[in-house]
Amino acid sequence: MSTRARSGVVTITTDFGHKGPFVGTMKGQILRRFPEAKLIDLTHDTLVHWPDEAGFWISRSYRYFPDGTVHLAVVDPGVGTRRDILLLERDGHLFLAPDNGLLAPLATAPAARHWHLDLARLGELGIADPSATFHGRDIFAPVAAELAAGRREPASLGTPVERVVPAWLDEPTVGEGQVSGLVVTTDHFGNLITNIERTLVEALGEVAVLAAGRRMELRRTYGDVEPGTCLALINSFDVLEIACAEGSAAEGLGLGRGAPVIVRAAGG
Amino acid sequence: MSTRARSGVVTITTDFGHKGPFVGTMKGQILRRFPEAKLIDLTHDTLVHWPDEAGFWISRSYRYFPDGTVHLAVVDPGVGTRRDILLLERDGHLFLAPDNGLLAPLATAPAARHWHLDLARLGELGIADPSATFHGRDIFAPVAAELAAGRREPASLGTPVERVVPAWLDEPTVGEGQVSGLVVTTDHFGNLITNIERTLVEALGEVAVLAAGRRMELRRTYGDVEPGTCLALINSFDVLEIACAEGSAAEGLGLGRGAPVIVRAAGG
Amino acid sequence: MSTRARSGVVTITTDFGHKGPFVGTMKGQILRRFPEAKLIDLTHDTLVHWPDEAGFWISRSYRYFPDGTVHLAVVDPGVGTRRDILLLERDGHLFLAPDNGLLAPLATAPAARHWHLDLARLGELGIADPSATFHGRDIFAPVAAELAAGRREPASLGTPVERVVPAWLDEPTVGEGQVSGLVVTTDHFGNLITNIERTLVEALGEVAVLAAGRRMELRRTYGDVEPGTCLALINSFDVLEIACAEGSAAEGLGLGRGAPVIVRAAGG
Repeated sequence: MSTRARSGVVTITTDFGHKGPFVGTMKGQILRRFPEAKLIDLTHDTLVHWPDEAGFWISRSYRYFPDGTVHLAVVDPGVGTRRDILLLERDGHLFLAPDNGLLAPLATAPAARHWHLDLARLGELGIADPSATFHGRDIFAPVAAELAAGRREPASLGTPVERVVPAWLDEPTVGEGQVSGLVVTTDHFGNLITNIERTLVEALGEVAVLAAGRRMELRRTYGDVEPGTCLALINSFDVLEIACAEGSAAEGLGLGRGAPVIVRAAGG
Repeated sequence: MSTRARSGVVTITTDFGHKGPFVGTMKGQILRRFPEAKLIDLTHDTLVHWPDEAGFWISRSYRYFPDGTVHLAVVDPGVGTRRDILLLERDGHLFLAPDNGLLAPLATAPAARHWHLDLARLGELGIADPSATFHGRDIFAPVAAELAAGRREPASLGTPVERVVPAWLDEPTVGEGQVSGLVVTTDHFGNLITNIERTLVEALGEVAVLAAGRRMELRRTYGDVEPGTCLALINSFDVLEIACAEGSAAEGLGLGRGAPVIVRAAGG
Repeated sequence: MSTRARSGVVTITTDFGHKGPFVGTMKGQILRRFPEAKLIDLTHDTLVHWPDEAGFWISRSYRYFPDGTVHLAVVDPGVGTRRDILLLERDGHLFLAPDNGLLAPLATAPAARHWHLDLARLGELGIADPSATFHGRDIFAPVAAELAAGRREPASLGTPVERVVPAWLDEPTVGEGQVSGLVVTTDHFGNLITNIERTLVEALGEVAVLAAGRRMELRRTYGDVEPGTCLALINSFDVLEIACAEGSAAEGLGLGRGAPVIVRAAGG
């Protein structure tokens, strides 16, 4: 028996955007099986066909949800082909996504346990004849509902696996007195959000941040500089972010996803 | 007495987009009357002032929601004029929309029963003095709440009607060894979604699909071709779709809403 | 003891857009403290870093929600600096936002009572170590949850204040036989929504509306003119709006936020 809590909360993360009934019908499928589900959109605007952004945000967001939340993520360019479906348990939360690198940031054993969904057992759940192109609605949503309702445990639906498909995104490179990473995504304000963790920055002591040929100071919050001035900070998800106060760093610096960012010890 | 189930679920479909408090205040009005309502956004990004896209998606999506769901749709260029408001019951679901063609795809008797909302009875529901420009909030939402709460049946709110306003969109043309249809909408990935039903395609046997002067093969899923290659498939809503694997067919083929698509028997 | 009702509803208004997990993690934080919360998005597409649009919509929307709703708004360019956090009670609703002008439209005493959140009391609520850049998730959401759950009253969390930070937006100018205002925002249809109240227009009797060098008639609803014709009307939020029937006034007239609009008595 699991000692995991059960919150009834299901978060949904996709690259589906907001056009069409794609997310809506996933929610309908969940409510058909688990009417008490509390459905929360994490985001549907991750880069299409690129699992890493969804994984980045889920791995940094899940702690803000109640224990026993089920986190469902569908960025699934391989839908209908022989890719596996991954069930993952960690820190009292459950995660469900294609095994395509999306959940790699969470997959480190022994913190996490993982299973591949056994498609032969879907019949037991009444999941028959899923479409070839929308497993989010036809497989992921019903399975998430069963997990969130507490009627099924991952171990009863899948086969334990030791390894999962790795992330596509490279880890930052740690060198002598510097760390090199990159911009994972931008937010609505045009802030540039990197894959460089707080701990990597703090290990360097006093630092400067280099991007787009410019050198920026590390500050605490946007309002610490004059409007328009660009700065770096450790953001609320514990990674390095480059921002321009009351403006868009993406536009102001001409940078976007994948752009290189270097943090250098101030004496370097 | 109705034997319809009652799920408490209300889906909302509009052409309002995400700016401003339009959908939010509709939800507030529903919660004021029915605090237990479970509110699900189907989509708010249908083509503005064109009821057919909303109707297309609702007619293909409602089955994924619990029996007894109320589906509320507001694409209403005639708001405040003498257009009627349509209540429709079908397959254990209720639908509420302007009678402007939106619900035409669902309206075939005897599967469906339909009523025109009797505005003289709104006073009984405490709906007084609706605005001239936002019936979604002032009429549709309160009526949907009463229906979803099970306090009212359509027959107690309206007058039965035999005919509803027809759809604006033409049906596909079925000819000798071919079917001609058109692109109804695109999704966030740039896939082109047509009005050509699975059954029309299957009746032709082996087929090729013609659009933008190109000939595409009918495959099962996106991953069945190399990234970048365009294909046709029967999508998860049972209509023909044109896609380019891991790319945008809308951009790649230069097509959008209304573009003609032909399915031709392979020997033709 | 408060005699305020308690609806369990929390509305959320931000300038965060839909990218990333910003709104989602706010909701997670609310559900951790108050699992029964009913979370409604008012809008997340207000102009970034400009509190007035959020305040405009909240002040005109709150009446459509159940009594005892908590309205949480985060447009917060000063996050992490010494700006105050405002709690406001009015008409049986609670409001929570940075004290940066956002809630100014609601703040008139004696209709409203206001408090500044006492940060020293956050520890009592178990709010420790908030980030410097995301108080929406780390302070506003937990406080909103405590208020919505009915476990705390504003007076137990803050210090009464007489004055709040004023709005940035000017009030309309009332002259001899005319009123001058401006466009506060546009909606998804391109309608131009002004800050000119119904009462100011009605006080002038018969009027014409001047904008972009054109003169428009005041009508009741969009369908009162031919498609493409521009008109003015008092919209469903009781302010003057300029629209072009079945088209975009923003595009058609080349106007946007801040554009001047004049209402003139017809004899003038």
